[in-house]
Amino acid sequence: MNIRMLVYILGKVLLIEGVLMLLPVLCGFFYGESQVIYYIVLAITYIGLGFVISMKKPKNMTVFIKDGCVATALSWIVLSICGCIPFILTKEIPSFTDAMFETASGFSTTGASILTNVEAMSHTSLMWRSLTHWIGGMGVLVFLLAVVPMTGGSNMNLMRAESPGPSVGKIVPKVRSTAKMLYLIYLAVTITEIVILFACGMPLFDSVCSAFGTAGTGGFGVRNDSFASYSPLIQWIVAVFMIMFGANFNFYYYFTTRQISKAFKMSEIKVYLAVVALATGIICFSIRGLYCSFGETLRHSFFQVSTIITTTGFATTDFDLWPSVAKFLLLCLMIIGACASSTGGGIKIARFQIMFKTVKREINTYIHPRTVKKIYVDGKTVDSDIEHSVALYFFIYLVTFVSSMFIVAFEGHDLITVFSSVAATLNNIGPGLALVGPTQNYAFFSTVSKWVFIFDMLAGRLELMPLIVFLNPSTYKGIVKKAPKKAHS
Amino acid sequence: MNIRMLVYILGKVLLIEGVLMLLPVLCGFFYGESQVIYYIVLAITYIGLGFVISMKKPKNMTVFIKDGCVATALSWIVLSICGCIPFILTKEIPSFTDAMFETASGFSTTGASILTNVEAMSHTSLMWRSLTHWIGGMGVLVFLLAVVPMTGGSNMNLMRAESPGPSVGKIVPKVRSTAKMLYLIYLAVTITEIVILFACGMPLFDSVCSAFGTAGTGGFGVRNDSFASYSPLIQWIVAVFMIMFGANFNFYYYFTTRQISKAFKMSEIKVYLAVVALATGIICFSIRGLYCSFGETLRHSFFQVSTIITTTGFATTDFDLWPSVAKFLLLCLMIIGACASSTGGGIKIARFQIMFKTVKREINTYIHPRTVKKIYVDGKTVDSDIEHSVALYFFIYLVTFVSSMFIVAFEGHDLITVFSSVAATLNNIGPGLALVGPTQNYAFFSTVSKWVFIFDMLAGRLELMPLIVFLNPSTYKGIVKKAPKKAHS
Repeated sequence: MNIRMLVYILGKVLLIEGVLMLLPVLCGFFYGESQVIYYIVLAITYIGLGFVISMKKPKNMTVFIKDGCVATALSWIVLSICGCIPFILTKEIPSFTDAMFETASGFSTTGASILTNVEAMSHTSLMWRSLTHWIGGMGVLVFLLAVVPMTGGSNMNLMRAESPGPSVGKIVPKVRSTAKMLYLIYLAVTITEIVILFACGMPLFDSVCSAFGTAGTGGFGVRNDSFASYSPLIQWIVAVFMIMFGANFNFYYYFTTRQISKAFKMSEIKVYLAVVALATGIICFSIRGLYCSFGETLRHSFFQVSTIITTTGFATTDFDLWPSVAKFLLLCLMIIGACASSTGGGIKIARFQIMFKTVKREINTYIHPRTVKKIYVDGKTVDSDIEHSVALYFFIYLVTFVSSMFIVAFEGHDLITVFSSVAATLNNIGPGLALVGPTQNYAFFSTVSKWVFIFDMLAGRLELMPLIVFLNPSTYKGIVKKAPKKAHS
Repeated sequence: MNIRMLVYILGKVLLIEGVLMLLPVLCGFFYGESQVIYYIVLAITYIGLGFVISMKKPKNMTVFIKDGCVATALSWIVLSICGCIPFILTKEIPSFTDAMFETASGFSTTGASILTNVEAMSHTSLMWRSLTHWIGGMGVLVFLLAVVPMTGGSNMNLMRAESPGPSVGKIVPKVRSTAKMLYLIYLAVTITEIVILFACGMPLFDSVCSAFGTAGTGGFGVRNDSFASYSPLIQWIVAVFMIMFGANFNFYYYFTTRQISKAFKMSEIKVYLAVVALATGIICFSIRGLYCSFGETLRHSFFQVSTIITTTGFATTDFDLWPSVAKFLLLCLMIIGACASSTGGGIKIARFQIMFKTVKREINTYIHPRTVKKIYVDGKTVDSDIEHSVALYFFIYLVTFVSSMFIVAFEGHDLITVFSSVAATLNNIGPGLALVGPTQNYAFFSTVSKWVFIFDMLAGRLELMPLIVFLNPSTYKGIVKKAPKKAHS
C-alpha cells in the first residue's frame, strides 16, 4: 500500500475542507454571529495542518484500486470528523454522535437530521451544513483531482472509488480534465439555480442553501417545514432542478459540447425521465381528492417523486399520510435512485438497466440455448466483468440493508420505521416513513442506531465497496511485513 | 417444441392426480361423508381422461430445457385447476378464485388459506387439501419420473425445472433411480412421522394430515388454531420433523447408503442448522418474559423458527405480537428459506452460500487484483454459469416481489401486510404479519390480489424460471410456422 500517497491525499483533503470553511466564515461576518470565531480558528487549523502534511509530494504517486478505496474511505471519514467539530464547539449540536450524524448526513448528501428545530441554528452553521452537501455531491476527491495536478496515471482509481455508477468513464481522455469539466458544469448549474430562486423572491441566504441542498441532492433545508411554506413557483423550480442534478452529468457534457443528438440518445436519461413521469402519474391518481386542485396534486406528486428518486429529501407535504400504494412507490424510488454519474444516491438507473438486460438474455438462453448474446447499452457492449459486479452489488447492498435493519430493529420501533430509516440513510435520501417521516427527525434513535446510520450514509454515498475494502483486514496484510524490508534497502 | 411429449406428460399428470384422489375417497368412506361422491366421480374422470390422453407414447421423447419449463408450468397449472374442482362441487369453497387459491396454496406447499373456519370442512376435503401438500412437496414430475419409465435421456430437464435449488444434481447416475430414491426417502420419513405422532396421542386423521403438511413443508392444519392446542410433546416432534424436511435430501441419501461422514460434511446442512440455532437463540432472548417458563419460550421460539425457515407455516403462538426484532428475524428467515433439494421454499441456503462466496472473491479481487479464484462448495468448484444464474435469480426474485407488492398495495392495506403477504406466498410459507398474521387468513383480499398470490405461490414453488419461460411469447416462436411444414412432409 502506498502510505505516503495516502497521507498526501488526506492532507490535501484537510486543506480543501479548511478553505471551504471560509464560506460560512464570510456568512458569519455578514450576519455578525458570534459562532464565526470557531469557524475561523478551525479553518486556519485545517489549512495549516493540511498544508504541512501534504507539503512533500510523494515520488511514487501510483494508486491501485485497493489504495483508491482506502484513500476514499479515509478521506470521507476525516472530512466528516473534522466537519462536525464546529457544531460541537458552537454547542449547537453538543453530542459527538449527533454532530457526526449531521455531518456524515451532510457530506453523504443524505439530509437526515437530528435537529428538532433547524431555525434555531446560526446562519453560519446552517451555511456550513448546506455546503457539506455541495462538496459531498460531486465528491471531494473529484475536486482534488480537478484542482491539484496529480501525475502517475492511476489516479483514475481515486475517481472510480468515489464516483457513483456501475462503471466510471472519463468523459474526456484525461482524468484531470474530466474532473474539472464535471465541477464546472456543477458550479454553473448551481449558480443558475441560486439566481433563479433569488429572482423568484426567495431570500438570498435561503437561495444559496437550497441550491447547495439541491445540487448535492442532499436535502438539508433552512426551515422547519422544509419546502412547505415556500411559494408554489419556488417548489416547481426546485423540483425541476432536483431532476436535473439527478441526471447523468455526461448529458450536460454532451450538451455543452454541442453533441445534442448524443445527449438525447442516452438511454439512462430516457428511462429516468420515463420513471419520473410514470411515478408522478400513478401518485397523482392515488392521492386524488387529498388536495384542493389538480394543480396542487400534480405539484406535490411531482415534487415528492423528484425529491425521492434523486434522493434529495426536501418535502412540501407529509407523504407519510398518503395511501399505501403511493408510499410503496416512494419506497421503490428510494431504492432505485438517480442516474449514474449524478450527485444522487440509491442503486442507480444504470445498474437496473444492466440487470434487466442480463436477465432478458438469461431467459433467452433458456429458450434458445445455442445463442450467446452480449449486452448493449447505448450501442456499447457491457463488459462481462461489469455485468457480474453489478449483480453482486445488488447482493452486497441487500446484505448491508438487512444487517442494518437487524441492529436497528433491536430498539423495538415498528418495522416500517426500521425499514424506511435504513432505506433513507443507505440511499442518501433523508426522510422515510412513520417515525422518520418528512415531518419527523432522527433525534430519538439510540447511539448504536445512529452509528449504524452514519455507516450506512457513508457506505451508500461511496457505493459500499470502498468502505468494505477499508474495513477488510486482508487489505492491510503485508504492510507490517514490508515496512522493515524497506528500512533495510 | 415437442408438443406430443407435452400432451403425454399432461395426461400422465392427470392420471396421477386421479389416482391420488382415491385417498380422500377412502377417508370419505371411513367417515361416511356425502362429499365423497364428487371425489369418486372426479377421480374416475381424471384417471380415464389421463389414460386416454397419455395412451400413445410419443416416438420422440426429447425434452429441451424450454420444453421442461413449459411442461412443468403447465403440469402445475393443470394440477391446480383440476385439484380445486372438488372444493367447488362440494360447495365447501364455492368461489373459483378461492378454490384455486386454496389448491395452488396446497400444491405449492404454501399453506396460506382463505378458510375462516377449517373445522367446518369435511374430513374428505381436509385430507385432499393436506395431500396436495405432500405431492407438491417432492413434485409431481419427480413422481412421474419415478413411476413411469421414460427413455430419451433429456428427462433431466423435467427434474431440473421442478426441483428446488441452484443446481440439481442426480444423486445416482440415472434420473429415474434418483427420483425413486427421493420418493422412497420421502415416504419413509412421512410414515415415521405419522407413527410417532399417533403414538404420542394425536388422532390418526390429524397425524396423517399433519405429517403431509410437515413433509411437504406446507402448513395446512386441521384445527383453527393450527398447532396451538396440541400437547407440547407433539409440538416438539413436529418442529423437529419440519427441520428434517427442510434439509437437503442428499443428506438422507448419504445416510441410507452409509456414507455418514459425507452426510455430515455437507456445508449446507451445517449452515442451515447454525442459522436455526442462532435464530432460535436470538428470538428466545428477545421474547423473554412473554411466556411462563424458559421451556415454553424455547419451544415457541424453536417451533416458529422451524416453521418459518422451512417455509411450512404451522403456528403454536401468535408471533405477530412479538417484538420488532423477532418479527424482523422471522421475515428474514422467510426469504432465506430451507435447503436446496428439500421440500421447503424460499431462496434457499445454497444460493446464499454461493453468493457470499462470490462476494468474498469479488472483494478479494479488489484487494489482490491478480488472483483469479474459483469458488468451492463442499470441495467441488461452482461452475461460473451457476454462479451467474444465482446472482440473476436474486434479481428476478426481487423484481417479482416488488411487482407483486405494487399490485397488492393498490388495495390500501398497511405496508407490513402487503410486504408479508407477498413474502409469505412467494416463499411458500403461509402466514405473514399484521392482517395475514398466524391467527388470520387471506379471505379478505380482492380477487386481483388473490390471483397475484396464486401466481406467486406457483412461481415460488417452481423457482420462477419455468413460469417466466412459459409466459414468455418468444418461447412459442416458430411453432405456428413449423406446424404447416410438418403437414406437408
